[in-house]
Amino acid sequence: MRRAIELAQKGTGHTNPNPLVGAVIVKDGQVIGEGFHEAYGGLHAERNALKSCTEDPKGAELYVTLEPCCHYGKTPPCTEAVIKSGIRKVYVGNVDPNPKVAGMGIKILREHGIKVETGILDEECRELNDIFFYYITHDTPYVALKYAMTLDGKIAVKTGESKWITGGEAREHVQFLRHRYAAILTGIHTVIGDDPMLNARIEGGNNPVRVICDSRLRIPISSKIVQSAKVIPTIIAACERNEKAQRLEALGCRVLICPGKDGKTDLLELMRILRKEKIDSVLVEGGADINDSVIQAGAVNKVYAFIAPKIFGGRQARSPVEGEGVDKISDALLLNGPEITRFGEDLLLEYKVR
Amino acid sequence: MRRAIELAQKGTGHTNPNPLVGAVIVKDGQVIGEGFHEAYGGLHAERNALKSCTEDPKGAELYVTLEPCCHYGKTPPCTEAVIKSGIRKVYVGNVDPNPKVAGMGIKILREHGIKVETGILDEECRELNDIFFYYITHDTPYVALKYAMTLDGKIAVKTGESKWITGGEAREHVQFLRHRYAAILTGIHTVIGDDPMLNARIEGGNNPVRVICDSRLRIPISSKIVQSAKVIPTIIAACERNEKAQRLEALGCRVLICPGKDGKTDLLELMRILRKEKIDSVLVEGGADINDSVIQAGAVNKVYAFIAPKIFGGRQARSPVEGEGVDKISDALLLNGPEITRFGEDLLLEYKVR
Repeated sequence: MRRAIELAQKGTGHTNPNPLVGAVIVKDGQVIGEGFHEAYGGLHAERNALKSCTEDPKGAELYVTLEPCCHYGKTPPCTEAVIKSGIRKVYVGNVDPNPKVAGMGIKILREHGIKVETGILDEECRELNDIFFYYITHDTPYVALKYAMTLDGKIAVKTGESKWITGGEAREHVQFLRHRYAAILTGIHTVIGDDPMLNARIEGGNNPVRVICDSRLRIPISSKIVQSAKVIPTIIAACERNEKAQRLEALGCRVLICPGKDGKTDLLELMRILRKEKIDSVLVEGGADINDSVIQAGAVNKVYAFIAPKIFGGRQARSPVEGEGVDKISDALLLNGPEITRFGEDLLLEYKVR
Repeated sequence: MRRAIELAQKGTGHTNPNPLVGAVIVKDGQVIGEGFHEAYGGLHAERNALKSCTEDPKGAELYVTLEPCCHYGKTPPCTEAVIKSGIRKVYVGNVDPNPKVAGMGIKILREHGIKVETGILDEECRELNDIFFYYITHDTPYVALKYAMTLDGKIAVKTGESKWITGGEAREHVQFLRHRYAAILTGIHTVIGDDPMLNARIEGGNNPVRVICDSRLRIPISSKIVQSAKVIPTIIAACERNEKAQRLEALGCRVLICPGKDGKTDLLELMRILRKEKIDSVLVEGGADINDSVIQAGAVNKVYAFIAPKIFGGRQARSPVEGEGVDKISDALLLNGPEITRFGEDLLLEYKVR
């Protein structure tokens, strides 16, 4: 099963909104086949493993990180393939939380005389698919905040200069996160201020859909994002259409009308719309105010905080989450963690929202 | 030498402004004596080790983390005792940076026919005495900032509530730090706002000298600090004396006149005055502005940042270092580190100033 988990990880960033799944087939103590879900729309892990078998899988055992599916999606159900193959026994990591499966796959296998054991390395398999498990059971995507700050909690000096807080290795990891998440969300202030590309600059990287909260369609036509919208999917979330919408659309942007509150995009509603578009995960790389808005909307699942070994000081310097904030300590957003990783001189602290 | 380092650590908080030193005496492959510098004014490690010998140290070898002293201080020079004991060879961790010693101790031992090897576990021995090494070679004490913040860099919610950011285990460790440092520095705003005791609430703990920056002597007579000043040494640093000074003195406070700039205490000058008083180390537990002032004064050697797993948000919520701050990223205070320790749910990140 450890090998199956390793295999599953190879699909990272390519399978969304499908889960990461790995499978290994063992016969007479020898691995005779292995596979993983490589990309959305492609074969599932079980079928890839069966396809790779170096001998007849009849009578073999299958290790798979997630319950085999039993419904027709982009591909026919894996349970059919497993039954047909003559596999004798299946070891399953997690039961699929997808309401369309949820134990039905296991039931079908057992009805066909295949032995099934579940909960093998349950937790490790689960860790693979935080995004999928959340997405498949909620009407909003899995949302993560990402920011880089100094040890005194600043995301810029008082003059606004913010390039760069962290070093090259930390910034490179951000590219990996962008590849991992299906969409990246930022506010119009960041676009106007920094004119970023918000793409995933890694080899073989999948660019996330860029989602810009821009209630009044203020995004400059000349911005890199608009200019590259024909190549990289780009959604401009506005409160209402105006004459600029058509120009943006002509340049490849999708203008999405999302209700607003007090002139600001209703972020929870926006998340629901993105979820309907099968966007399973959103990385928020916004400024201090949008970070607060997403938290206030109750939409955040995870926080990636990079910490640089420096101090800026300054009453006027911005900090990563501003806006209104909470009134009482007891109202704070509580987190579990962190997982700690060093990137050069910087630290990455990863917390999950409780 | 590892054992000598372990022994040395037992003196933590009791030897200031002396260094932490440990010593082990070995004869025929057996430890026959060990000791450490237990408290300022008490015997040095070498003498304690000699005193503890279970057999005649003649011909034995001495392991000592720091070069034996050769000058008369509170006690006569250790070199004398070592020579008299008949020790054959001495292994030294660090050469003493104290200009009164600085290799002279080793020279004297060698002149008396004792073999000396230096640089044994040099770095580990050095780690013991960051404070002493800095103090003995500078005209200011070793200064550390300590603060507790949320993952979004807040030391309070916007209403000012700040109790508590971190949990019990982290706060307990702060008591240990207070014991370790010779003085604790805070600003008058913290005293007026929180009415703290600023003592070291651990068993056998040494209370630090409390130093309050209070340029205009605004400290309330009824504050816990003033009311306990007869028991715990307390310095009120003011820019000039006024009629209140005498009342504070009658209650046990020492009013220290320190020049000011723009109505604020000149912190570097204050540090120089404290250094003259043999205060080797100062833990700054101030608010956002005093933290910035100490940094601007160039007086900070170390930062202890506790990070709690929560997010407050809020443009108005205070962050750990405010004041003016730097104008450019390239002017940031740069740090090395961190050492990372978990205290319950909280993290402690320890950095040294580059």
